Amino acid sequence: MSAHETITVELGERSYPIVIGRGLLGGSFDLTNYVRGDDCLVVSNDTVAPLYLDKLLPNLGGRDVKSLTIADGEAFKTVATMQQILDELVRTGANRDTTIVALGGGVVGDIAGFAAACYMRGVAFIQVPTTLLAQVDSSVGGKTGVNHDKGKNLIGAFHQPQLVLIDTDTLDTLDQRELRAGLAEVIKYGAICDPVFFTWLESNIQALLDKDPSALAHAIRRSCELKAEVVAEDEREAGRRAILNFGHTFGHAIERCQGYGEWLHGEAVAAGMVMAAELSGIASTDVARLQALVAAAGLPVEPPSIAQEDWLAAMGMDKKVQRKRLRFVLLQSLGDAFTTSDYDESKLGQLIGSRA
Amino acid sequence: MSAHETITVELGERSYPIVIGRGLLGGSFDLTNYVRGDDCLVVSNDTVAPLYLDKLLPNLGGRDVKSLTIADGEAFKTVATMQQILDELVRTGANRDTTIVALGGGVVGDIAGFAAACYMRGVAFIQVPTTLLAQVDSSVGGKTGVNHDKGKNLIGAFHQPQLVLIDTDTLDTLDQRELRAGLAEVIKYGAICDPVFFTWLESNIQALLDKDPSALAHAIRRSCELKAEVVAEDEREAGRRAILNFGHTFGHAIERCQGYGEWLHGEAVAAGMVMAAELSGIASTDVARLQALVAAAGLPVEPPSIAQEDWLAAMGMDKKVQRKRLRFVLLQSLGDAFTTSDYDESKLGQLIGSRA
Repeated sequence: MSAHETITVELGERSYPIVIGRGLLGGSFDLTNYVRGDDCLVVSNDTVAPLYLDKLLPNLGGRDVKSLTIADGEAFKTVATMQQILDELVRTGANRDTTIVALGGGVVGDIAGFAAACYMRGVAFIQVPTTLLAQVDSSVGGKTGVNHDKGKNLIGAFHQPQLVLIDTDTLDTLDQRELRAGLAEVIKYGAICDPVFFTWLESNIQALLDKDPSALAHAIRRSCELKAEVVAEDEREAGRRAILNFGHTFGHAIERCQGYGEWLHGEAVAAGMVMAAELSGIASTDVARLQALVAAAGLPVEPPSIAQEDWLAAMGMDKKVQRKRLRFVLLQSLGDAFTTSDYDESKLGQLIGSRA
Repeated sequence: MSAHETITVELGERSYPIVIGRGLLGGSFDLTNYVRGDDCLVVSNDTVAPLYLDKLLPNLGGRDVKSLTIADGEAFKTVATMQQILDELVRTGANRDTTIVALGGGVVGDIAGFAAACYMRGVAFIQVPTTLLAQVDSSVGGKTGVNHDKGKNLIGAFHQPQLVLIDTDTLDTLDQRELRAGLAEVIKYGAICDPVFFTWLESNIQALLDKDPSALAHAIRRSCELKAEVVAEDEREAGRRAILNFGHTFGHAIERCQGYGEWLHGEAVAAGMVMAAELSGIASTDVARLQALVAAAGLPVEPPSIAQEDWLAAMGMDKKVQRKRLRFVLLQSLGDAFTTSDYDESKLGQLIGSRA
């Protein structure tokens, strides 16, 4: 038996539960209610599979389960890896009733979800995220995809899962750097839409770093609630959902200029959030609070050294910028974000110039 | 000026018009109302582009238009070709407001539509079908995708266009074999859901083969109306939409066993429809009417010689069939189709045995 909590992502006929708890893997949560047909394919990576694949299988009792292990890392989030999954589905004769189960971090979830979106024009999939980043962010909301040589997530689909199953015990094996990277997205939720949660994080950041179970449970639950609300309001990012990209314009540029994998996504987002807060022109005490929380989480508050022209190119400010200004997610105040093209250009110049 | 008719595919916020008429290319129909942003990419093939690309451009006046020509033929309906389109979008810095325009037959529409579905998780696209098959079938309804080595359309997405623009003058340059292949799908609509249209086709098949403009206009309009109705009822083929696959289980098997390209899709579907009618057990006079109309359209009424085991494998009746029966689209009567797994196995055996 295990206690668990459920948050629902309200999307009409595409609604689905996020189930959060300890000890959910190993059979205490019956996944088969979410598996439409007779068979499923578990996609995992070579780091996570040895740890959790055998634990997951009892949750799928009675189904014809196959598994595929892909290489671990952002470098493998490509069309080629997705093609591997599609080939495996074809090889095993998977039909439209197949369910794909993504067991791993954000990369596994994004690729496996995209394969599910494209196989026979869409089959069911289940997210079983095993990193903090995937649990609080990438597994929820239906964004799936792969990277293109020239940019992250340029190829993908909106494809909602049937279920997100978060066994917080999987964080026991997560290394500390990955944990901190996940905390960047947790901090993001506080910064963009929940000042009370932000304050709670300020008081509990050490407990989170120490993997205190009840602190982690609260952080994950609240992050998922906030993300579920935003996604329910704007599934395909026509408007408000874009606030979830706070810190990401700078963050993506950092990842791109450093080469993916040098900085973890969460690390780049952390430094990017501080930059975005500075660009927002909010009270310097609020910028300082964000900076302090990011630092307390052991995350970078400054980007690496990048030449101004590389910043501009990486943010898409090449030829196009003559026609269009960038859209940034900025803060009205700490805990209240909005998107705008109306930003202070000279301040932006300072931010990306002074760091070069 | 040009007269045109409009049929709406009713899909709530994803509704769109099918505009049918003569002389619509060349500027008489303003496409720019359907182009969200500043730029668009026209995707065509090396047969159609020389004929119609320059005619299309005036319809897009004032936009930043780029074009990409892919190789003509089903053999190029692959992930690799789609990747070419994605690379071009990335290279030209296309953003989420880009519109992709598919100018060509079913292959161009399917690949370009799938690229549109996947680029930045979905950008707008417009179908400008130039073959009868694409005009009456593949351009309407949002099915996009590419082939896998092991089967047709195994990889794809449902992604509705903003507009389907059918300039029937483009059929002037369509070769007779392609015209006949398109008529197979036209006959299909009569056979599955409109006995009156079927009777009309029996009287007008020669006029259609002679490319009589008013006969073609009626056939295209009625086909689009019927398809739009079925799609509106069941966008993602959870039920009724499957009747549009009448003749396709056998047809796909023929294409697969012959190697794609040997038989055109419409030719394979034509022979497949006659087989499906026979499997249906309807009055032999009705089977004979279908057979006669198919023959009058210059289409094959018999499949090529295929060994029984190849039929079975190609229809997916390998190991899986022990667990599952196939689903077939059968006829209750001529003009009334339904899907079922309850078919006469010995008759199926005769159909695919007697042809071996």
